[in-house]
Amino acid sequence: MYSVAILGATGAVGGEFLRLFEQRRFPVSSLRLLASERSAGKRLVFQGKEVAVEAVGPRSFEGVEYAFFSAGASRSREFAPFAIDAGATVIDNSSAFRMDANVPLVIPEINGQAMTAESKLVAVPNCSAIVLLMAVAPLRSLGKIERIIVSTYQSASGGGAAMMQRLVDETRDALDPNTQHPTPTNLPPYAFNLFSHNTPINEHGYNEEEWKVIHESRKILGMPELKINITCIRVPVLRAHSESITVEFGTPLSTMPVRGEGAGGGEAIEDAVRRVLSEARGVRVVDDRPGNNFPTPLEASGQEDVLVGRIRRDVSHPSAISLFASGDQLLKGAALNAVQIAEELIKMRSAVSVG
Amino acid sequence: MYSVAILGATGAVGGEFLRLFEQRRFPVSSLRLLASERSAGKRLVFQGKEVAVEAVGPRSFEGVEYAFFSAGASRSREFAPFAIDAGATVIDNSSAFRMDANVPLVIPEINGQAMTAESKLVAVPNCSAIVLLMAVAPLRSLGKIERIIVSTYQSASGGGAAMMQRLVDETRDALDPNTQHPTPTNLPPYAFNLFSHNTPINEHGYNEEEWKVIHESRKILGMPELKINITCIRVPVLRAHSESITVEFGTPLSTMPVRGEGAGGGEAIEDAVRRVLSEARGVRVVDDRPGNNFPTPLEASGQEDVLVGRIRRDVSHPSAISLFASGDQLLKGAALNAVQIAEELIKMRSAVSVG
Repeated sequence: MYSVAILGATGAVGGEFLRLFEQRRFPVSSLRLLASERSAGKRLVFQGKEVAVEAVGPRSFEGVEYAFFSAGASRSREFAPFAIDAGATVIDNSSAFRMDANVPLVIPEINGQAMTAESKLVAVPNCSAIVLLMAVAPLRSLGKIERIIVSTYQSASGGGAAMMQRLVDETRDALDPNTQHPTPTNLPPYAFNLFSHNTPINEHGYNEEEWKVIHESRKILGMPELKINITCIRVPVLRAHSESITVEFGTPLSTMPVRGEGAGGGEAIEDAVRRVLSEARGVRVVDDRPGNNFPTPLEASGQEDVLVGRIRRDVSHPSAISLFASGDQLLKGAALNAVQIAEELIKMRSAVSVG
Repeated sequence: MYSVAILGATGAVGGEFLRLFEQRRFPVSSLRLLASERSAGKRLVFQGKEVAVEAVGPRSFEGVEYAFFSAGASRSREFAPFAIDAGATVIDNSSAFRMDANVPLVIPEINGQAMTAESKLVAVPNCSAIVLLMAVAPLRSLGKIERIIVSTYQSASGGGAAMMQRLVDETRDALDPNTQHPTPTNLPPYAFNLFSHNTPINEHGYNEEEWKVIHESRKILGMPELKINITCIRVPVLRAHSESITVEFGTPLSTMPVRGEGAGGGEAIEDAVRRVLSEARGVRVVDDRPGNNFPTPLEASGQEDVLVGRIRRDVSHPSAISLFASGDQLLKGAALNAVQIAEELIKMRSAVSVG
């Protein structure tokens, strides 16, 4: 059993940690809930008991063994050193350390080997990168991936609890002229609307979210030259991200290791893709062509698996596959991936101490 | 002045015809509003006067000079022959005749020359094809287009007034557990959700909507070999379609006809793209990187122009450009394009009769 802290306990991801610890029987001996001064004093329920939220400070991590950070990059930069000095292992949901060459950036199903029993700081990738790679990484067994083209349909939860509430409030206002919630004006209207991801655009014309996905994906897959084009769009959906993905292989589809005899007698390429995705941990294939049943963000919401479907050969390219994926941004895109990292570390450490 | 009929007058597109005729002072001498038996007797307002909707029949088109059809492919197939026999010119919004080699499929800004003064039947392309090509066709002046990869964010209006109402009703229900509208179950839930376009999937794994865009685009551009990959997704937006588009050229971007001296002194490729799009009729460039202001479907709603932005070089390909476009599905995607076709025909015919 471990002493655990959550920094950002009152946020959208924070709430998911509490539920996941209970559901997965994560071995929590004591729990410290940390947040900004503004949220201090709030009370959250864990295992039937109320726990008070404390304001985070330099001494908040004394005695803590696993610290889950989900309060933004600047708070991670500020408090991770204190937590590590206090002896805690930090699992960080922010972008603060992801591209640090000394910090493992981990999706356990894909590159768990990037961390060791000694890792004191492990970064959780960007949520859009996680959904993308859960769908794409298993395809590496079919051939060398050369290029990925992806357009996202990202949910409000990516902007935290405040953006989710904003979507609900603005939608109520749009439907009922008698209710008008005050909304800040730093974003385009969100009710029945969508917009390019609201992060700064760099000199290449890509926004920060897109740039993160490109560079984090290369690091996670260990493919520094992988070509990725991505367009990140926020849609009026509450908590799961969807992605329209095309994967181009460097080898012809005809050379892929399908099962059976080929030339009509063997497995079709689409079947081979469905097979490797069905066998991949954390992926569920939803690809019912006759029933027109494919992944939706509503079906992915609350699910641990990333749903993948619309599997087909890209008719515009000799060796590419197109897919559509939906994954819960708060779960696999954030809290679940972080808890899975901690579970892996605990396993590695108990193996080391037994050995 | 012309005798005009609208078949499908009570639908979402039908209402737009009435507004456009008034706004553009389309020369209507008399107006016949036609619909199914179910809608007969309804009254719509045109130029301040009520006009009764009549049930369509074989003799509905006697004396009609321009007949706008927007009541689905089977009604178009049934009634277009009667209208043409009666001497009317039919401008058809349905898919019934689009791929008929004898029927011009027209976006006036792009291929108005496909029709002549003698054309008695002209087809309006699929709305997703129109938004795509308004953004992409002007780029042909920069180089040979080899391949287009597009993911759509399609509005409820593509499914007609009933689907728009369904989105509103389901969203009310989602926000307020006390209201529960009866909704049919032939679609995934629509409130705060999105789903793969609900048309049948063919043996290639593409749905009917996607297949239409591929084949109609080739016909409109006169490029039968053009490679297109498309994923069509319905999003919870009311009336404008958006599209994330990547255009691959067969020639290096460095050979494109930019203005100025090049090598630092000349126009950047992105500027050349912005220029040709700014000069294109029916397109408005919305591409403010510092202000993070790009096309949104809400801004495109009610607008005649297709909005295009997020213009950038595709970092994953040596000669590709990525874009994001939004266009009003009911206007440029349907009614406006149809009225523009009629206006062009009237111009051609008056030139012929003067000549």
